[in-house]
Amino acid sequence: MKYYEMKETKIEAYVKSVGIFSKDAQLAIKEVGDGNLNLVFIIKEKDTDKSVVLKQALPYVRVVGESWPLSIDRTKFEANALEIQSRIVPSLVPKIYHRNDDLALIIMEDLSHLGLMRYEMIDMKKHPRFAEHISTFLADTLFYTSDLYMDSEEKKKMTARFTNTELCKITEDLIFTDPYYDAESNNINPKLKPYLEEVFWKKEELRLEATKLKYKFLTEAQSLIHGDLHTGSIFTSEEETKIFDPEFAFVGPSAFDVGKVIGNILINYISWSGKEVIQEKVDDYRSYLLNTINDYYNSFVEKFKVNWEKDGRATITKIEGYQSYYMENMFRDTLGFASTVMIRRVHGLAHNKDVDGIEDLEKRKEVQVQILELAEEIMMNRYKFNNIHEVTNLVKEKTW
Amino acid sequence: MKYYEMKETKIEAYVKSVGIFSKDAQLAIKEVGDGNLNLVFIIKEKDTDKSVVLKQALPYVRVVGESWPLSIDRTKFEANALEIQSRIVPSLVPKIYHRNDDLALIIMEDLSHLGLMRYEMIDMKKHPRFAEHISTFLADTLFYTSDLYMDSEEKKKMTARFTNTELCKITEDLIFTDPYYDAESNNINPKLKPYLEEVFWKKEELRLEATKLKYKFLTEAQSLIHGDLHTGSIFTSEEETKIFDPEFAFVGPSAFDVGKVIGNILINYISWSGKEVIQEKVDDYRSYLLNTINDYYNSFVEKFKVNWEKDGRATITKIEGYQSYYMENMFRDTLGFASTVMIRRVHGLAHNKDVDGIEDLEKRKEVQVQILELAEEIMMNRYKFNNIHEVTNLVKEKTW
Repeated sequence: MKYYEMKETKIEAYVKSVGIFSKDAQLAIKEVGDGNLNLVFIIKEKDTDKSVVLKQALPYVRVVGESWPLSIDRTKFEANALEIQSRIVPSLVPKIYHRNDDLALIIMEDLSHLGLMRYEMIDMKKHPRFAEHISTFLADTLFYTSDLYMDSEEKKKMTARFTNTELCKITEDLIFTDPYYDAESNNINPKLKPYLEEVFWKKEELRLEATKLKYKFLTEAQSLIHGDLHTGSIFTSEEETKIFDPEFAFVGPSAFDVGKVIGNILINYISWSGKEVIQEKVDDYRSYLLNTINDYYNSFVEKFKVNWEKDGRATITKIEGYQSYYMENMFRDTLGFASTVMIRRVHGLAHNKDVDGIEDLEKRKEVQVQILELAEEIMMNRYKFNNIHEVTNLVKEKTW
Repeated sequence: MKYYEMKETKIEAYVKSVGIFSKDAQLAIKEVGDGNLNLVFIIKEKDTDKSVVLKQALPYVRVVGESWPLSIDRTKFEANALEIQSRIVPSLVPKIYHRNDDLALIIMEDLSHLGLMRYEMIDMKKHPRFAEHISTFLADTLFYTSDLYMDSEEKKKMTARFTNTELCKITEDLIFTDPYYDAESNNINPKLKPYLEEVFWKKEELRLEATKLKYKFLTEAQSLIHGDLHTGSIFTSEEETKIFDPEFAFVGPSAFDVGKVIGNILINYISWSGKEVIQEKVDDYRSYLLNTINDYYNSFVEKFKVNWEKDGRATITKIEGYQSYYMENMFRDTLGFASTVMIRRVHGLAHNKDVDGIEDLEKRKEVQVQILELAEEIMMNRYKFNNIHEVTNLVKEKTW
């Protein structure tokens, strides 16, 4: 089947032809994509309220236009990753109803009853079960797709299947390279520019540490990772958590996913210093955020170890001392990746609304400098912290 | 074309049909394979003395028989690796004249005017240009197939192309796992068995270090490595060096190749303590061996750095401090891999004739214990040595 771009008129025929809806169903179709890359439609049957999401990749970067072409293969990686994740953690990812790799589309569960975690955090909403859910998602997906569990031959075939070159390249450039110099792709608050030029871009030691992590990203094939696990890839409510959009999935360093979640929560934590909100509320929410990080990371480690004890099939899992060495590396790398992610969201191409919602550019700049300074402190001390509490205590002591 | 096993009668028709020899050539065909896995024929034209080697993979492990099946895909990996290596270091690998992946065969340059390095070392032959050649081979193949030089997308595609699962699995088991416990696959000198049971297999710290290196082998996709670079994969003379048999090639930790060469030279070094040879000759040859290791490793580092300065296209190569960090890791890993290789050749499945040539099992055992002890010392101190001279000095001080 030849690729064509889905329009609302074509969608109705398509979803009926593949049996998602019956021929005489009355459908309401709405385009809701606000991401950078894809078309996203919600398709609802008027009588029954049954609804699904149809996501289609465009052969170019949507925010930029046809001048930045991008292969539609990414849908295949997303669907392949969702299939694996839904075998491992079925309750934490959207259900797939249909995929068509030629058309680069996936029809999946409609999760619009949930909120995007990033916006919910901007609204100071709490998600009491988030730490429990995300720790399960990460402990299970990262363990069961690693050499600790998988047969080495199956693991290598999975790695080859996820040769996701184009989207990896985006991460390599936008996260690990461009923020460390005056790259064209950067998106810089003009008030921040002097700080970058006079201070940040002169930090050679920090750049070296980011480079070490970039090389891990380039070469360490540990687990099938989501690859883009920021708070805009998570739907939440008080009860539910769903992790979606794994189009950046590939077999890479496990701690990249773990660190990205922490980095995004810390961005939200700092963002409050630039907003006019009653201090008591801020204190309460911030304390919730740090507790979430502690609970999340500790539970992740506990669950990962439980998986290891229960299902560690590889001989390396039986070797005295290897588990603590492994989890120690995981911790150091998690802090490193968290730091790189905080930095790229300040002045790289893609920002977080948590901070860009601060209209006053001077105030925004102050918040951005705080993020850069905290990120540096975490990166440069990542071999000194003994546990996640020491990291969150460091954050708590800041007087922003 | 369907796979069939080459017999001498079929070879003549085949090599003529693909134009390697003319139709009326008078050929002499001889099977010379002494490896564990393949058929190897030398085909010579009587009138002209023109000769070639035909290597064909069998669909099972030759030394064991059809009960241990092995995919003939390995010839494809070997030919693919040879093609890449011959673009990078054309003078150091055999020329390929013809490949047929369906028949799992390669027709290549006949190198029988050279000697197998392992046997030459057993005969105390010196190879004054070996250090120069092997350092070039490694500095060039490991640099130009890494993320330091290659575009990250091309590198990832190369990695996927070399998904050499079966042969990697052999290394994972036979080098990194089985020698550390009483595995069935081990091939144990009965006089050594008590030492293994009472001493060696109780070394938990050593086993932990070997496990860390195994995980690197499983997950670190740094460069296209030869994968089996022992002294039986190298042809030598006083003038020439040719590296062949890269059927274990895949994208893995660069230091694995570098360390394997050192480990094999050290095995030969120690083996003399169990042989009756005039001490003066032994001293002279041993001093040559340690000089070779020093020259080889130092030249390797120098040439790798020259490549880096000249052709380091990736942005990571421009980062202040990254080169010394990279070469530091290379050194630690090289020592670790050298150690694992020494150990596996003592009581793993495959041995070196350097040591197994010692007929007296008690004497052989003494040599084997010396190898195991030196390997352990190198492994456990690999973060303490400052340079390769400190390692070879340690060896020199031994009073074997």
